[in-house]
Amino acid sequence: MVGAGQLARMTHQAAIGLGQTLRILAAQRGDSAALVGADVVLGDYTSYEDLRLFARGCDVLTWDHEHVSGEHIRRLAADGVTALPGADALIFAQNKQRMRERVEELGFGVPDWACVSTVEDVEAFADKHSWPVVLKVVSGGYDGRGVWVIADSAATQSVVAQGKPLLVERYAPMTRELAAVVARSPYGQVAVWSVVETVQRDGICVEVLAPAPGLDEATALTAQHMAITLAGELGVVGVLAVELFATADGLLVNELAMRPHNSAHWTIEGSRTSQFEQHLRAVLDYPLGETRMTAPAVAMANVLGATSGGIDERLHHLMARWPAAKVHLYGKETRPGRKIGHVTVLGQDMTDARAAASAAATYLAGTEPS
Amino acid sequence: MVGAGQLARMTHQAAIGLGQTLRILAAQRGDSAALVGADVVLGDYTSYEDLRLFARGCDVLTWDHEHVSGEHIRRLAADGVTALPGADALIFAQNKQRMRERVEELGFGVPDWACVSTVEDVEAFADKHSWPVVLKVVSGGYDGRGVWVIADSAATQSVVAQGKPLLVERYAPMTRELAAVVARSPYGQVAVWSVVETVQRDGICVEVLAPAPGLDEATALTAQHMAITLAGELGVVGVLAVELFATADGLLVNELAMRPHNSAHWTIEGSRTSQFEQHLRAVLDYPLGETRMTAPAVAMANVLGATSGGIDERLHHLMARWPAAKVHLYGKETRPGRKIGHVTVLGQDMTDARAAASAAATYLAGTEPS
Repeated sequence: MVGAGQLARMTHQAAIGLGQTLRILAAQRGDSAALVGADVVLGDYTSYEDLRLFARGCDVLTWDHEHVSGEHIRRLAADGVTALPGADALIFAQNKQRMRERVEELGFGVPDWACVSTVEDVEAFADKHSWPVVLKVVSGGYDGRGVWVIADSAATQSVVAQGKPLLVERYAPMTRELAAVVARSPYGQVAVWSVVETVQRDGICVEVLAPAPGLDEATALTAQHMAITLAGELGVVGVLAVELFATADGLLVNELAMRPHNSAHWTIEGSRTSQFEQHLRAVLDYPLGETRMTAPAVAMANVLGATSGGIDERLHHLMARWPAAKVHLYGKETRPGRKIGHVTVLGQDMTDARAAASAAATYLAGTEPS
Repeated sequence: MVGAGQLARMTHQAAIGLGQTLRILAAQRGDSAALVGADVVLGDYTSYEDLRLFARGCDVLTWDHEHVSGEHIRRLAADGVTALPGADALIFAQNKQRMRERVEELGFGVPDWACVSTVEDVEAFADKHSWPVVLKVVSGGYDGRGVWVIADSAATQSVVAQGKPLLVERYAPMTRELAAVVARSPYGQVAVWSVVETVQRDGICVEVLAPAPGLDEATALTAQHMAITLAGELGVVGVLAVELFATADGLLVNELAMRPHNSAHWTIEGSRTSQFEQHLRAVLDYPLGETRMTAPAVAMANVLGATSGGIDERLHHLMARWPAAKVHLYGKETRPGRKIGHVTVLGQDMTDARAAASAAATYLAGTEPS
């Protein structure tokens, strides 16, 4: 796995059960997954040579992030490396313009959008759709970075001045955000999890509720159908997360990720097969595992770094207060707003599970005393 | 953790979630846990010097087997190392004579037994209790090794000739074997899992059924009470597994283990808190986690090595045939009868879960085609 963040860390946990050895390409010894992996190679994922040396002896190469260049991945494939998902699929998770074009071609909705390069372009779009608008870098953004909600021309100027390829999007009048997550094997087998609600704050996911509370069966099936269709049509192998806006006009695709994704961390305890195990099964071309939920309601809350220090004491108190909460810490230094872990709570009732997960995560972050 | 078998391997998986770093003392680089751990020290657990160097910088030292000498553990404690469970508790998992004496003192039953050193001693015991009898080494046995069912004087001779301290036990007319597994923290908090049935073949555990099918509530509570009492009275910190014989006269204690134990592997998926996470929480003095079951019926079957080679192909077929089966492979070379992994199946109904787990494990072992 190229990249050594928390996704690689949790993939390593799953690999152990399967009797597999996960080799991890890390930038530094202190990276989240490098702290716990047995086979860690230090290198630079932007260097073709580092990637090539890293891939030697691996059965398959896969990714913990979208930032490896498609050109490098194509060269690796030409050199005989099995790299999954491949460059032809990954481009749709790397390039927001290409993704939107393809999703529309396939007949699915996205928020109204346009490529823009000047303030005038943005103004013309806003004249048609009204302010505010959303500006996004075409590639390279993640976790709320590279995304700006823009109120007027003046605010547009500073973003355009960065000189990066941009697209503008209508500020979608959505009711909430959902995610449909699926895994697909090279053979074409797919397995989809329950559709979840993802709760965002300041552009960062703070909670995931599985299944999405009150979601009607027809919409859930539509979302799952979109994820399965996209996985097949885009040629994804591994986990595909489809972030969706629920709007009055139906579901719109927001973003795609082709790797284990925050919106499916709940599957570690909440599904018979976790997304990490499933991603490995998919890229290794094993049959996929059952995705049935293990409880009627599963709530996941991210631990967003607030207070540095004292986390061990807070963990003690959390465990005493919420003995059913499952804690996942990523071994990361606390920085304000940084995802340093997550908490999952299984329950009979979403209101209770959500309250416990949210309170436990907030408490662990040190944001406010409980 | 001293020892690098599958117990340390699965403890490492649990440690990752808790944000802990598990340092592992392995005899060889190829040991089960050494294949997946990030902090592996090669050394000899029988060497005090190796143990001392290994313990440096660890918050707490714990064990994946019972074979570390009590004398070494006492010296480590005197040198300021926190070693849990401590020597005073561990002796009851190391020495079958001391265990039986103490269990009887506490008012719990064990099968009739006596220390023996000659064929005449065994004959005298058999005259009183009838043949066959069971001979056991007082210390050092495990997984059916160091245990012999003896039909007559002639068979006794060869065991006695080995010159090891022995005890003889009545061949208990039991209805089945159960296990009650509990964790205890230094603070004295305890958390017990559902009582399970352990199914043995040739002295090796082949299946574990949780909860034990058809076990009446009173007997289950008695078994849990025995485990909790023993954990407290023996001063155990960490996981204590109490192996029990169910007999017409009630429950008799067979053996004790003070570490994660095969009879609780089902807790990885089958309980809100796995025995591996719980063992870490206990020895690190964190509050313990909830032990509620995640399904009405959980069956675990050991994969006992049979056919070497071809396991990857068999794993493919297993996953296709039983998509709900959770496979745990230990990274071990196959040897006949060696535990190389286990399979867990959760279900609504024990008959179905057991059939699936058993068939999947048998198939994976290559014992017979399915």
